[in-house]
Amino acid sequence: MDAAVADARSRGTAPAERTRPSRGRLQSILTASTVALVGASDNSRWSLTAHAALTGYGFPGTLFLVNRRGAPAHGRETSTSCVAIGRPIDLAVCIVSAESLPDALRDAAAAGAKGAIALASGFGESGAAGRQAQADLVALADELDITFFGPNCLGFLNLVDGVSGWASPPPVPDPEPGSIALISQSGGIAIQLGRFSAKHGIRFSHVISTGNEAMVDAFDVARTIVEDERVRCIAMFVEAIGDAQRFDELTARAAELDKPIVMMKVGRSALAAEVIASHTGALAGDDALIDVALRGAGVIRVDSLEELVVTAGLVAGTGRLPAGKLGVVSISGGACDVVVDAADTFGTPLAAFSEQTQARLRETGSAYGAAHNPLDVTGAAVGGPQLMTDAVEAVAADPDVGIVAIVDVLPDGDLQRKPSARLTALGEAISRVDKPCVVIHQVTQDLTDDASRSTEAIGVDHRICGIDMAVKAIGGAMRWSEWRPRPIDAPTARIAIEPRPLSEAEALELLSAHDIPIVPRRLATNADEAAAAAVELGYPVVVKVVSPEILHKSDIGGVALDLGSEADVRTAFARVTSAASAVAGARVDGVLVAPMRSGGVELIAGVVRDPVWGLALAVGLGGVWVNVLDDSSLRRLPVDEAVVHEMLGELRGRSLLEGARGSKPADLARLAQVIANLGRLALALGPRLESIEINPLRVDGAEIEALDGAVTWS
Amino acid sequence: MDAAVADARSRGTAPAERTRPSRGRLQSILTASTVALVGASDNSRWSLTAHAALTGYGFPGTLFLVNRRGAPAHGRETSTSCVAIGRPIDLAVCIVSAESLPDALRDAAAAGAKGAIALASGFGESGAAGRQAQADLVALADELDITFFGPNCLGFLNLVDGVSGWASPPPVPDPEPGSIALISQSGGIAIQLGRFSAKHGIRFSHVISTGNEAMVDAFDVARTIVEDERVRCIAMFVEAIGDAQRFDELTARAAELDKPIVMMKVGRSALAAEVIASHTGALAGDDALIDVALRGAGVIRVDSLEELVVTAGLVAGTGRLPAGKLGVVSISGGACDVVVDAADTFGTPLAAFSEQTQARLRETGSAYGAAHNPLDVTGAAVGGPQLMTDAVEAVAADPDVGIVAIVDVLPDGDLQRKPSARLTALGEAISRVDKPCVVIHQVTQDLTDDASRSTEAIGVDHRICGIDMAVKAIGGAMRWSEWRPRPIDAPTARIAIEPRPLSEAEALELLSAHDIPIVPRRLATNADEAAAAAVELGYPVVVKVVSPEILHKSDIGGVALDLGSEADVRTAFARVTSAASAVAGARVDGVLVAPMRSGGVELIAGVVRDPVWGLALAVGLGGVWVNVLDDSSLRRLPVDEAVVHEMLGELRGRSLLEGARGSKPADLARLAQVIANLGRLALALGPRLESIEINPLRVDGAEIEALDGAVTWS
Repeated sequence: MDAAVADARSRGTAPAERTRPSRGRLQSILTASTVALVGASDNSRWSLTAHAALTGYGFPGTLFLVNRRGAPAHGRETSTSCVAIGRPIDLAVCIVSAESLPDALRDAAAAGAKGAIALASGFGESGAAGRQAQADLVALADELDITFFGPNCLGFLNLVDGVSGWASPPPVPDPEPGSIALISQSGGIAIQLGRFSAKHGIRFSHVISTGNEAMVDAFDVARTIVEDERVRCIAMFVEAIGDAQRFDELTARAAELDKPIVMMKVGRSALAAEVIASHTGALAGDDALIDVALRGAGVIRVDSLEELVVTAGLVAGTGRLPAGKLGVVSISGGACDVVVDAADTFGTPLAAFSEQTQARLRETGSAYGAAHNPLDVTGAAVGGPQLMTDAVEAVAADPDVGIVAIVDVLPDGDLQRKPSARLTALGEAISRVDKPCVVIHQVTQDLTDDASRSTEAIGVDHRICGIDMAVKAIGGAMRWSEWRPRPIDAPTARIAIEPRPLSEAEALELLSAHDIPIVPRRLATNADEAAAAAVELGYPVVVKVVSPEILHKSDIGGVALDLGSEADVRTAFARVTSAASAVAGARVDGVLVAPMRSGGVELIAGVVRDPVWGLALAVGLGGVWVNVLDDSSLRRLPVDEAVVHEMLGELRGRSLLEGARGSKPADLARLAQVIANLGRLALALGPRLESIEINPLRVDGAEIEALDGAVTWS
Repeated sequence: MDAAVADARSRGTAPAERTRPSRGRLQSILTASTVALVGASDNSRWSLTAHAALTGYGFPGTLFLVNRRGAPAHGRETSTSCVAIGRPIDLAVCIVSAESLPDALRDAAAAGAKGAIALASGFGESGAAGRQAQADLVALADELDITFFGPNCLGFLNLVDGVSGWASPPPVPDPEPGSIALISQSGGIAIQLGRFSAKHGIRFSHVISTGNEAMVDAFDVARTIVEDERVRCIAMFVEAIGDAQRFDELTARAAELDKPIVMMKVGRSALAAEVIASHTGALAGDDALIDVALRGAGVIRVDSLEELVVTAGLVAGTGRLPAGKLGVVSISGGACDVVVDAADTFGTPLAAFSEQTQARLRETGSAYGAAHNPLDVTGAAVGGPQLMTDAVEAVAADPDVGIVAIVDVLPDGDLQRKPSARLTALGEAISRVDKPCVVIHQVTQDLTDDASRSTEAIGVDHRICGIDMAVKAIGGAMRWSEWRPRPIDAPTARIAIEPRPLSEAEALELLSAHDIPIVPRRLATNADEAAAAAVELGYPVVVKVVSPEILHKSDIGGVALDLGSEADVRTAFARVTSAASAVAGARVDGVLVAPMRSGGVELIAGVVRDPVWGLALAVGLGGVWVNVLDDSSLRRLPVDEAVVHEMLGELRGRSLLEGARGSKPADLARLAQVIANLGRLALALGPRLESIEINPLRVDGAEIEALDGAVTWS
């Protein structure tokens, strides 16, 4: 079982089981104007907090409380059911047990509700019975035409519209909205991210927990919310991506709208342990494919909770960055060292200051020592803030700089409550320059709301605490800013082919018919024919048994290499055919005779079907490279030649293709074309194709030849 | 120039230039009882803050203020010089300009001071004139028998004794001491680390900034302070390690005293760009050697500022951990995912719960779902804290667990001021178990002093905010806890050999004489002898020119491979000798004839002398492994067979030695012995040895042979 599917199933939901809500339906739930809190009770902590979220966060609609026994709750009258309210409701926030949920849904639907929040756990995440209960609940909801979030979720807080269906303490301390939509499969994580963000001046338009995602998943929600013009960025905490189509729709629309998506996808290590069974698939764990899918869609993938919201906060604030690298102005030399190491670790490119910038820095006295990046203004700036502001303006003017980071001291709630005079001067300088400037506090620390507002008020728009955090977030923002969607057409024509096992000869024929050069070879059905073929092709030759039933010929002794004479060929014919005949059920159609190749570089190029992501192409160098080193590059299909070029460039052994160690430089243009052709062929072979592989693909300068091929079907 | 030396020189000090202070001298400076603040003035921000540090942090001795004009300062009378004070002083804290420093030192020494703090910058860090001024200052201090910290430093805060020579705002908000000595070459970083630590309940015994280290370096200071029984851990921010001897003395003593050293060594990337020039040296950048040196000495190397003090805080608190892995109990399932990924990323091993533990977790109801590690107790613990405490006790009792991490909510200064009832119950459970327990807040956040003290009061001794930070710090503590010094004897006998260039034949002879098997070969001075040697050794053979002046024979066409006949050998003899004769100044002594080897695995084993760390051994696989992949392992000498085994195990291509891809499994015991012999030989060759290398060292099962060797001298 694929790991992503396994993940989804851990919450009891497989993608295909879901009924997909329309965007209109989700939008109307998120902006419900009549809400019933079902299970309202002063004895329930959940009810208390859900009520507080609804009443304390500016809900402009009408709220009703439902208590089965009609007991008053939270100082208000209650109804005994949604129906008993006597007027239609939009949304039922259900603080009821797993057992009571079906009745609660029936009652809500009867009162006209199209939406519900299902807080209760004890469903898909808790074994077979729970999975069945969850499936039953979905079937019931379908029948009732009601859409529920969860179960095992905390619901949503729509801060821009003041609507909440949040069944827990509010994850943010006040109702003031921001422009980032936070969507988390885990409710607990959403709370922690909310608390963290409150201490870093990061505000949300929405906070949404999707839980078991029985009917509504994080991608459905994101796809709805991305349309809201008040939302500038989507931050997602994702345990499982169960459906590539929803992912693709979301990311494509976000790209159109120029809205960044920042995502923490957990399960790297568990996924890494899972490998696709076929040989080519073994090139890459699933997480590698997720990584590739996210990168390919322009998603900023992050590795930690803090980084998720800090990066979202930065990129929601800056929008797309101007072209260029990072320029750094620092009050501390030690911090410069830390910045350089962090930039190297996180792949955040540092600008090289122009001669002109350097001269300007020296002129103004900002460059005490060397006028290089990062610039150490030194403690001299403590007495002369002008040194910092001059430096910021000079660095921002450098053509190689796209964003400026200023390492200085940010106020906090404790040791330094107000912005310093130097920070105020910096704010003014920042207002004068036309590139985004981020002020970085050297270590992580909380900013109070006060500190956050007061620095913003003086023009310090972007603030990050912690050098590592800042350098990493800036790198993410840069990568997103440079990324542009590059649609590649998939072949529309299908190849009519019966999905039956192909022999090596048939597989090679198929490749050859689609502009993939293959090694010359002859089919021989007896030793005489084999000997004649060897003469025709030239010694030395290889002889391989032909049998559609035998995929791994070498394993059963079905291959003979480097045969230099007629006698050798005859012996080999007898040997490989009898080895194959010994395999139960194997039909032997003869042998293939082909020239023995040596020298050059051997690659493996293969396409496999991933249960979530569909067809994926893997390219790697053969031999130790793939077997010992796992050195491969991966992409979802379709790909074109430019993408294959990129893939080849990612290989650690790429220099072997460029002529290192005495190898001939490969004809990379043709190589990319051949591999792209394999991708096109795979797509054209239709939905029953499971894998198609060339192994090895021999490259010796301009000579490019598939020496063996295999195709499997589901 | 070696990068570490370059680093040291960036502050103007090369190791050899330093005059080393005695431990007694440093100890008396750090515990000075009479201190003069030189340059005291109400107009100086530095003077104000230095005065505040001295008076506000419990200085039990006597403080005098010195103002050249005798003007009152900080509400007190001043003297016009140290001598004018009229009684001996121990330490002069010099808040004076670079120009005035020599006079200030003279005056302080005349008043009996043995120590001084030199705040002023404008010395070694600022060009040639500054470097000269710094050298002059050292010479003067030597003459005066006074030892100064800096220049370009902020001095020290000895919190355990209440003595401060800190010329800046105090880096910690109050004088209460802890048990961690923080030593930073950068003063700015020390301040930021102090501020950060204050918000995380981490307290210091000392905070010391060493600046340009003209006379006193971080290792001198650490070596002194490590003796203090009130110090349980040393945390160091290091820009340069200029002297391996001081490093070695410190780390050896720390190991004896069982005190951990946590170090952030910056300059990874700059160092990575610098490579040792010789071929074997190119296997590894200097930072790799620093990494190896730190690891070999049991130092916990960290990558970020926050991690430096958080790790120090943890390990100072726990001391050496019991054997075992990490067991995790979490209130949140999402957090479990994050923990697993972090454990994988940072190499922190997770325990596998025993059957018994699993049964106990199920019995108590703590394991809602699977009873595996990390254990998700789920939100059910919100209503039933017992579920968490039972789980903590069960996990702590598991024999595979050495330390328990509990993911829950820590109070902070803002949203939740007091420990929750659940945390209080956890504190009680922690007090009942006999393994260290760390409570982890999911995201980074400040703890107020209140929060820190109140959680400590309820038994929560160890608290870390941020899952990544916690998992990484715990991993560091585990590695230190498992590490034991393992002294290896270096050979004491010296080999009497003239340090002149050796021919390949001579180099091989030298190897052979020290139990390193070499390929059979014959020296031939004419074509007849070469042909006879070929017959004797068996075809095919290789022929290489013998000339001590030519190190890289292949480059000049001095090598002929795979010669299969007498005619080939004769032609080759003529070709290689004439090629060598064409090299100006090269003496040709004939050719070596050796059997042509094929198959097996080729290694490179070489020893080079690093200017800081001395002799280092590098081992790698040959061919693409070293040239394309930089796949090598590195150690300082001496090494023994066990260390070489470890090194071979670190190679990415190690499976080739174990029989992967059809290779014969190598005789690893003999291989380790041969490589260890190379290390012993290198040490015995004395201080003029620059490098000794075997390339290739051919390994084919039990056959191990040096095919070529080279030796260079300084």
